[in-house]
Amino acid sequence: MNETSSVGIVTPRVARFEQALALRCGASLPGFKLVYETYGELNRERSNAVLVCHALSGSHHVAGQYADDPDNVGWWDNLIGPGKPLDTDKFFVIGVNNLGGCYGSTGPLSTNPATGRRWGADFPFVTVEDWVDSHARLADQLGIERFAAVVGGSLGGMQAMNWAIQYPDRIGHALVIASAPKLTAQNIAFNEVARQAILKDPDFHGGHYYEHGVVPARGLAQARMVGHITYLSDDSMDRKFGRKLRHGKPIYSYDVEFEVESYLRYQGEKFAGFFDANTYLLTTRALDYYDPAAGHGGDLTRALSAAEAEFLVVSFSTDWRFAPSRSKEIVGALLHGDKRVSYAEIDCAAGHDSFLLDVPLYHGVLRAYFDNIRV
Amino acid sequence: MNETSSVGIVTPRVARFEQALALRCGASLPGFKLVYETYGELNRERSNAVLVCHALSGSHHVAGQYADDPDNVGWWDNLIGPGKPLDTDKFFVIGVNNLGGCYGSTGPLSTNPATGRRWGADFPFVTVEDWVDSHARLADQLGIERFAAVVGGSLGGMQAMNWAIQYPDRIGHALVIASAPKLTAQNIAFNEVARQAILKDPDFHGGHYYEHGVVPARGLAQARMVGHITYLSDDSMDRKFGRKLRHGKPIYSYDVEFEVESYLRYQGEKFAGFFDANTYLLTTRALDYYDPAAGHGGDLTRALSAAEAEFLVVSFSTDWRFAPSRSKEIVGALLHGDKRVSYAEIDCAAGHDSFLLDVPLYHGVLRAYFDNIRV
Repeated sequence: MNETSSVGIVTPRVARFEQALALRCGASLPGFKLVYETYGELNRERSNAVLVCHALSGSHHVAGQYADDPDNVGWWDNLIGPGKPLDTDKFFVIGVNNLGGCYGSTGPLSTNPATGRRWGADFPFVTVEDWVDSHARLADQLGIERFAAVVGGSLGGMQAMNWAIQYPDRIGHALVIASAPKLTAQNIAFNEVARQAILKDPDFHGGHYYEHGVVPARGLAQARMVGHITYLSDDSMDRKFGRKLRHGKPIYSYDVEFEVESYLRYQGEKFAGFFDANTYLLTTRALDYYDPAAGHGGDLTRALSAAEAEFLVVSFSTDWRFAPSRSKEIVGALLHGDKRVSYAEIDCAAGHDSFLLDVPLYHGVLRAYFDNIRV
Repeated sequence: MNETSSVGIVTPRVARFEQALALRCGASLPGFKLVYETYGELNRERSNAVLVCHALSGSHHVAGQYADDPDNVGWWDNLIGPGKPLDTDKFFVIGVNNLGGCYGSTGPLSTNPATGRRWGADFPFVTVEDWVDSHARLADQLGIERFAAVVGGSLGGMQAMNWAIQYPDRIGHALVIASAPKLTAQNIAFNEVARQAILKDPDFHGGHYYEHGVVPARGLAQARMVGHITYLSDDSMDRKFGRKLRHGKPIYSYDVEFEVESYLRYQGEKFAGFFDANTYLLTTRALDYYDPAAGHGGDLTRALSAAEAEFLVVSFSTDWRFAPSRSKEIVGALLHGDKRVSYAEIDCAAGHDSFLLDVPLYHGVLRAYFDNIRV
């Protein structure tokens, strides 16, 4: 084993883009900014860059910590750092907050130049394809012609996959983790329940709640609670909480009876305290819309035909949001198109959220894969 | 095959009980009424009565239709009638609305004698055990010393199981369908999300919304949407809706894009138009609390030790709310206690809701089972 350590103190940077970005929804974004972080050093050949794409509630803060907020550790810090599976002694790693986000990149919280007010719900719909285009602009600005790899879990995996489709000559490896080639009706249904909770919250004000000095906290908490159930496995919830009663016996109340209720409420309220509801809406829609095969008669192999990257696809045994069968759809389509792909299904009880955990077999697979990437 | 037909026009009846009912929550209900329906004729020996217990949103209207509302067909009409699997030429079938319900039995909509106002959220918590006690009172009033069978699906199956525990000498057969011996943490979590949607609805008014001339329709619709996803299988949703777009292509909107969204919204709004939110809260709590083994050190075999009934346990292959493994827990506990039990796992794509459908193999099993019951 290597010695591993943290990337240490990191500082987000801002990249500004003057040229308008044409979006799939038909709108054009008149200039924008992306907040990003980097870890490690870009080598002289500019061949060791790895882009990390985030999922629904993620951000550009992927590794390390902030000088003024040391408890705020990057969401994939267990994976990325000197000697870690994604080794910053070898790679130059970039985390970026997606367009439409609420962590500093242009999004609903930004000022709409046409009105001088915050975009709010008028921020145009952004898609996985748009995000990839915007990432390519960031790569241009950083002087990165080609990524050694693009990696992401869940919605982040969709971006990695689409990098290989949209910019085949600019990506060496696509790591698609705990992901799917498109949402099922059930996936969309859960998103819709989450959206309705926000849209129907009286504090939503048609998405212009900022101007009313409120946020749709009830709806956003509700959305997060629903989502959270789908991130965990039935089994992991049972191990964690079972039917444990807060008071040892029923008190016959709608207050917390079972510990799992307390956990869910806490997760919901915490999330509603820092995340933006309009970003949540936008991002769930990006998930719904994602379907690279749709423009190819539903044929994923054809959708992936231009890809030149090598693929690593990883799934987790108890993930029921994006089950292993969904990863196998991607693997099958790649094999059918004679693409190079490795696949690992990791036994882990933690459900969809497994991709964020330091599961030894999982991190071993990623370490071996990254070790074999030549830069 | 027999010729089958409907039980025809039915009329609900009301049974009144003057004696107070002691509830598990510690409260005592000072007299109550139960609304019920019957189909077929009680034989001279009073040995052919079958009690049908309803699930979360069910009612006493199990079969037939109303003279003034012919479209309102009983929820298990496909199962019950002359020549049907639960044959009313042989059996005297009773459907009853549970205490705490919103279809006429004493519940949150009833007048609290202590205040002269509607009970609302002050209606005492009722449990599966309480329901069974109240059913026994109804049986007393109808002169039924012993049920040939008690049958129910989901929460109704829990009542059937507990009939065998609480009144072992008053039940010949317990049919426990698409049920579980207790909820998992995930089951409770989904219930909690549903409850929070209602409790946090500004129109809930602490459960006394009747007095404000409103109902927490948003919250109740939201609760139903969440619940509905768990009643269907991923596969059945995909067969029914897939990713079908309302407008053929994305219109980039939070209005209905995918047909599954339209379906869910419709189900939610329809439900909020007729069901009572306080009943929904009470009933999900009854589900959460149900755990007959809890008083026996978690040992279900011991909980069932007094049971004398024969059991039929039925599960459905794609039911992920109460998966076949949950039914097998019941079967295992019964076998371990040397009880008589038959078990059928039915292949059906429809998920939890399969128990309401006319699935040939399923109805065949029920027909054979009921045919073999001697009255």
